[in-house]
Amino acid sequence: MDGMQPSTYSPRAFRALTWHDALPAFRDGTDTPRAYLERCLETIAAREGVVQAWAALNEKGAREAADASTARWKAGRPLSAIDGMPIGIKDLLETRDMPTEMGCAAYRGNFPKRDNAAVWALRQAGAVVLGKTVTTELGSVHPGPTTNPFDPRRTPGGSSSGSAAAVGARMVPAAIGTQVVGSIIRPAAFCGNVALKPSQGAINRGERQATSQSTHGVHAGCIEDMWQVAIEIARRAGGDRGWPGLFGPPVAPAAARPERLIVMETAGWERLDAASRGAFEAVLGQLRDRGVALLRRGDHPWIEAFERAIAEAQRVSTLITAWENRWAIRNLLDQHPDGLSERAKAGLAAAEAMSVADYQALLAEREEAQRRHAALAPLADALISLACPGPAPVWEGDKPGQPLSPRPTGDTVFNAPSSMLFAPVVTVPLMAVGGLPVGVQVMGQTHTDARVAAIARWLLETLQPVEA
Amino acid sequence: MDGMQPSTYSPRAFRALTWHDALPAFRDGTDTPRAYLERCLETIAAREGVVQAWAALNEKGAREAADASTARWKAGRPLSAIDGMPIGIKDLLETRDMPTEMGCAAYRGNFPKRDNAAVWALRQAGAVVLGKTVTTELGSVHPGPTTNPFDPRRTPGGSSSGSAAAVGARMVPAAIGTQVVGSIIRPAAFCGNVALKPSQGAINRGERQATSQSTHGVHAGCIEDMWQVAIEIARRAGGDRGWPGLFGPPVAPAAARPERLIVMETAGWERLDAASRGAFEAVLGQLRDRGVALLRRGDHPWIEAFERAIAEAQRVSTLITAWENRWAIRNLLDQHPDGLSERAKAGLAAAEAMSVADYQALLAEREEAQRRHAALAPLADALISLACPGPAPVWEGDKPGQPLSPRPTGDTVFNAPSSMLFAPVVTVPLMAVGGLPVGVQVMGQTHTDARVAAIARWLLETLQPVEA
Repeated sequence: MDGMQPSTYSPRAFRALTWHDALPAFRDGTDTPRAYLERCLETIAAREGVVQAWAALNEKGAREAADASTARWKAGRPLSAIDGMPIGIKDLLETRDMPTEMGCAAYRGNFPKRDNAAVWALRQAGAVVLGKTVTTELGSVHPGPTTNPFDPRRTPGGSSSGSAAAVGARMVPAAIGTQVVGSIIRPAAFCGNVALKPSQGAINRGERQATSQSTHGVHAGCIEDMWQVAIEIARRAGGDRGWPGLFGPPVAPAAARPERLIVMETAGWERLDAASRGAFEAVLGQLRDRGVALLRRGDHPWIEAFERAIAEAQRVSTLITAWENRWAIRNLLDQHPDGLSERAKAGLAAAEAMSVADYQALLAEREEAQRRHAALAPLADALISLACPGPAPVWEGDKPGQPLSPRPTGDTVFNAPSSMLFAPVVTVPLMAVGGLPVGVQVMGQTHTDARVAAIARWLLETLQPVEA
Repeated sequence: MDGMQPSTYSPRAFRALTWHDALPAFRDGTDTPRAYLERCLETIAAREGVVQAWAALNEKGAREAADASTARWKAGRPLSAIDGMPIGIKDLLETRDMPTEMGCAAYRGNFPKRDNAAVWALRQAGAVVLGKTVTTELGSVHPGPTTNPFDPRRTPGGSSSGSAAAVGARMVPAAIGTQVVGSIIRPAAFCGNVALKPSQGAINRGERQATSQSTHGVHAGCIEDMWQVAIEIARRAGGDRGWPGLFGPPVAPAAARPERLIVMETAGWERLDAASRGAFEAVLGQLRDRGVALLRRGDHPWIEAFERAIAEAQRVSTLITAWENRWAIRNLLDQHPDGLSERAKAGLAAAEAMSVADYQALLAEREEAQRRHAALAPLADALISLACPGPAPVWEGDKPGQPLSPRPTGDTVFNAPSSMLFAPVVTVPLMAVGGLPVGVQVMGQTHTDARVAAIARWLLETLQPVEA
């Protein structure tokens, strides 16, 4: 492929790879998890050369796990509704059977032979851990090799680049991502995924206690699979240390029509291209047509106060995270002076210029935004916005001698608020702009993950996708 | 030594090793940090054979650091008031120049060559990182070789066994400990230390994000040094991720007489021997003589409700911690089937018998206790209690064929409440029972660490030590 074919994504035409609808055939023996896996491997063989979603694949281990699952389905004793599901694991999470290199030269060959708590839970549920998906360097800004499955000239988004691209390319029905600022929802929105960034602490991060805003989440082809993966992990491994975990039903919640939604503009509203803004307004128009009341920033002083409180979400989230990672990155750089990108070094320099008082001030900004968000609870069922500022941008790689692009995997402006607010958010692929996916996200109060998923499901099942 | 000499600790006679009072001599050149270090090394040479406080010593690196500090003092440009202070680091924290073996066979030879954020901060302040102090296995129950500096037949307490013993043996003026249930305050109380277990999150745990109740803290010979070490770390590395850090002045707060104190009984009150109870009542009598109002559980229904809410603090703290460590310990055991003690395996089994719902129930118990504690804020300046249930018990090692002693490093019953409550606590050596140290602790509301230290300092400077 020359990478120059036109982008051709259409949310009406695209059929994502799904899992939940394969279960009847597993039960009656007309399909098996092993056969499902082989179809995934065929897709990977056909597309991986261009998409480059995988940092590592364990085909042998996956085939063994799929065979074991096949036997369980045959015996009528699957471990869960995701028994046999092939799944990708972002390469920030440790896996006992594959290296964990975090997209970072300093971690080349790192192979601790441990399972992250979420990976452990997936195996307990019978899922087939097929491979590690490409992450940007340490989950931050510096990109990996993955391309957008709908246009290889473009970024898949980051940092969960490989998870989003693998799902978008129909290589697997689901993949695990992580988000600190915008690392699940943005790539999912760029790659036509459904995805959940849960409430802070809702899914056990295990050895990756990481930063105060980081979460594990799920990329999938549909709400049913997204929820099932999340709840199967949370039922077995719970939430982060000190957090109660994910609340919600054992299967995906039914679609629920919201009565009232708040349109969240964020600082991204001014950066939107006309086509993306028009497509989103068309989505909002459909909501109004279906009797959903929409509140916007002029409609209530608390909404205005909320928008002001999240206006600096990118700066606040980025600096909080840089400070929290400061010692880990410093140790890494001291041990591997050539093992980090210039982007990572610049992030470290910013963190090392901060004082404790600077960090405390950022925490206060974050807490104020959380209070402004909590105040919105009585006003509406949830908030709605774009999940990314238009389609995935073209990314042709760094140019020697040129300044580094600040956002090679796209702009987090629509994502930093939910991260900063510890709020659950689901993106659904409801729009195409210029033949590329653009997501719509629903955000709720902490611990309302199931309600957010139900509203997102209703949007997906009710609205006509918009193509601009 | 045959280990059978009588215990002879007297809080009146014992003179702890201190640092802050050496600074004038560093300034005028009559003493130097290098000479101070050599005195510490002489003490270590004389006593380490019996006390066994150290897992590793870096004498060469310490001498180089002390020489650099000596030059800074000579030039009138010390980096801080702890520039040159020899300090021990509990062997759970990573240090770039010494292995980190965590008292655990599975970590033998572990040498990640990284500095924990608190260690980094100590070096930035000029402190001399002299060595790693013995911890119980992974900071839990299974003891290391350290003996009590006042009676080698007895435990020094745990898990910060070596830090407490090194300070009690006058080997160093200060050492870093960590606490999840009772791992700083109990060994400090058994070894005649002053010690701070700060508010949850007050000191950056760095790579050890560990469990939801774990903290870094400081063992020292006096309040001045204890506070200085804590604040020098916190000024440079701040608090844990998402926490604001330690609040308080840049030097130890002056002694402050409390108006009212609540006597906290805990579930330990019924387990106390008569001599220890009598000694503590004598301390309370001195407080009353000095006009401090004392409130006890019969005096106010909120105090009664608080005592009931903390009655199960040991169970709640132990099980929360076991659950949170479950995946890390499982991974370790799978990789090193012979690398963990039977005690650690029993803890893992307890954790693996728990469900997410069990953990959520424990979090709810902990939150209820925190609410009952917060309700006490208007009633008194702080709470006071014993820091350990009497003197350190005799510990002669496990006996082949016998059941394992459940508490080889002593009982955490007086310590679990402050851990569970996220509350700051300071222990001071105000009592001796049978010739062995027994601590008195002051506990306050979260973030009142400086106030707690000021009250503890007043107790230490005002009351007559009690010998029973």
